[in-house]
Amino acid sequence: MSENESSVPQSRGPAEHSVREQIVEAAEAHFSHYGYEKTTVSDLAKAIGFSKAYIYKFFDSKQAIGEAICAKTLSTMIAAVERAVADATTPSEKFRRMFKTLVETGAGLFFNERKLYDIAAYSAGEGWPSARSYCERIREILTEVVREGRESGEFERKTPLDETVHAVDLVMQPYVNPLQLQYNLDLVEEAPVQLSNLVLRSLAP
Amino acid sequence: MSENESSVPQSRGPAEHSVREQIVEAAEAHFSHYGYEKTTVSDLAKAIGFSKAYIYKFFDSKQAIGEAICAKTLSTMIAAVERAVADATTPSEKFRRMFKTLVETGAGLFFNERKLYDIAAYSAGEGWPSARSYCERIREILTEVVREGRESGEFERKTPLDETVHAVDLVMQPYVNPLQLQYNLDLVEEAPVQLSNLVLRSLAP
Repeated sequence: MSENESSVPQSRGPAEHSVREQIVEAAEAHFSHYGYEKTTVSDLAKAIGFSKAYIYKFFDSKQAIGEAICAKTLSTMIAAVERAVADATTPSEKFRRMFKTLVETGAGLFFNERKLYDIAAYSAGEGWPSARSYCERIREILTEVVREGRESGEFERKTPLDETVHAVDLVMQPYVNPLQLQYNLDLVEEAPVQLSNLVLRSLAP
Repeated sequence: MSENESSVPQSRGPAEHSVREQIVEAAEAHFSHYGYEKTTVSDLAKAIGFSKAYIYKFFDSKQAIGEAICAKTLSTMIAAVERAVADATTPSEKFRRMFKTLVETGAGLFFNERKLYDIAAYSAGEGWPSARSYCERIREILTEVVREGRESGEFERKTPLDETVHAVDLVMQPYVNPLQLQYNLDLVEEAPVQLSNLVLRSLAP
C-alpha cells in the first residue's frame, strides 16, 4: 500500500529510521510505565497515537520493539563498561572496573528504571539476540583484558585463554545477567570487590 | 484440651514426635504433588485425614510444616556433601567433590522432585531458618576444607581465611542456592568443574 511496505526491513532510509526511533522512544516511555509483558501492540498504538497497522510497518511484533529498546538499554551499559575499562591503566584495574561498572549499571537500572530492567531480564530469559550480543560483547571485553594481562606478564599463561575467560565469565554471570542480578542486589557493593580479588588471585602468575 | 497443648513445643515426647513425623510425611507427599504455595492447611488436613485443629496442635502454621519438610530435604543434601568430602583425600579434591555434589543433589531435586525443590527455593527466598542453617552448614564445611588445605600447605595463607571462604562461597551461591540454580541448570555439568578449577587456582600458594 505504501513505499515503506516494499522496502527491505534491514535497510530503511533516514525518514523511516526516524519514525522507528520515534516508535521506540514512545514505546520505551510507555513500557517504562506499564511494563512490557502486560502491554499489547494495540495498547501501545493507542497510547502513542499511531495506528497498529502503522507500527506493524516498522516492527514485525511486540518483541521486535522490545528488542530495539533492550538493545538501546544494553548498549548504554556496554558503553559505560568500555569507558571504565579505557580509564584504567593496568589489566587488573581494568577487570575490577569492568565488573564494578557492570554491577552498578545493572543495579541502577533495577532501582531507577525497573520496567526497563524487567524487559532486559525477560530478554535474557528468552535468549533474545539483543541479550545474547550483550553477553558476547562483555566476553570480548573480558578476553581483551585477560589477553593484555597475559602479554604484560601480570596474569598467568598456563591455563588456556578460553578456559580462563569462560570461568571468569561464569563468576560474573550472577551479577551481570539481569535475570539473576535481582537475587543478588544485597551483594552489589561487596560481591564485585570480593570476587574481583578472588579472580585476580586465580589469574596471578 | 489435651496434654499435648500444655507441653513445650521444642521438647515433645516420642509419641508426639511420631505424630509430627506422620504429618510431615503426609504433607511432603501432598506438597510434592500439589505444590506448597497453592495448598492451605485445610486442604492438607482434608487430604491426609487429620482435622485442621489436630494439625495445629503440632505446627503453628503452614510455614512450620514447610520448614520441617525443607529441613529434611536440605539435611539429605548436606549428608550427601559430607559423605563426598569424607571420601576424598586431598583438600583440593574435597572442594571439587563438595561443589559437584551440591550441584548434583540440587539439580536432582529440581528434575525429580520439582515441588520439593520449589519449597526449598521459596524457603531460600524468604530466608527461612532451615534455608539459613543449610547455608551456614555449607560454609562450615567449606571453612574446614580451606583450613585443612592451608595447614597442609596445599592452599595459600596470605588472604584472611574469612575473606577466602566468603569469596568462594559467593562463587558457589548461584549453583547452591535453589532460587538461583534454576537459572543455571544448563551449566550443572561444566560450571562446577570450570569454577572449581578457577577457585583452586586462586587458592594456590
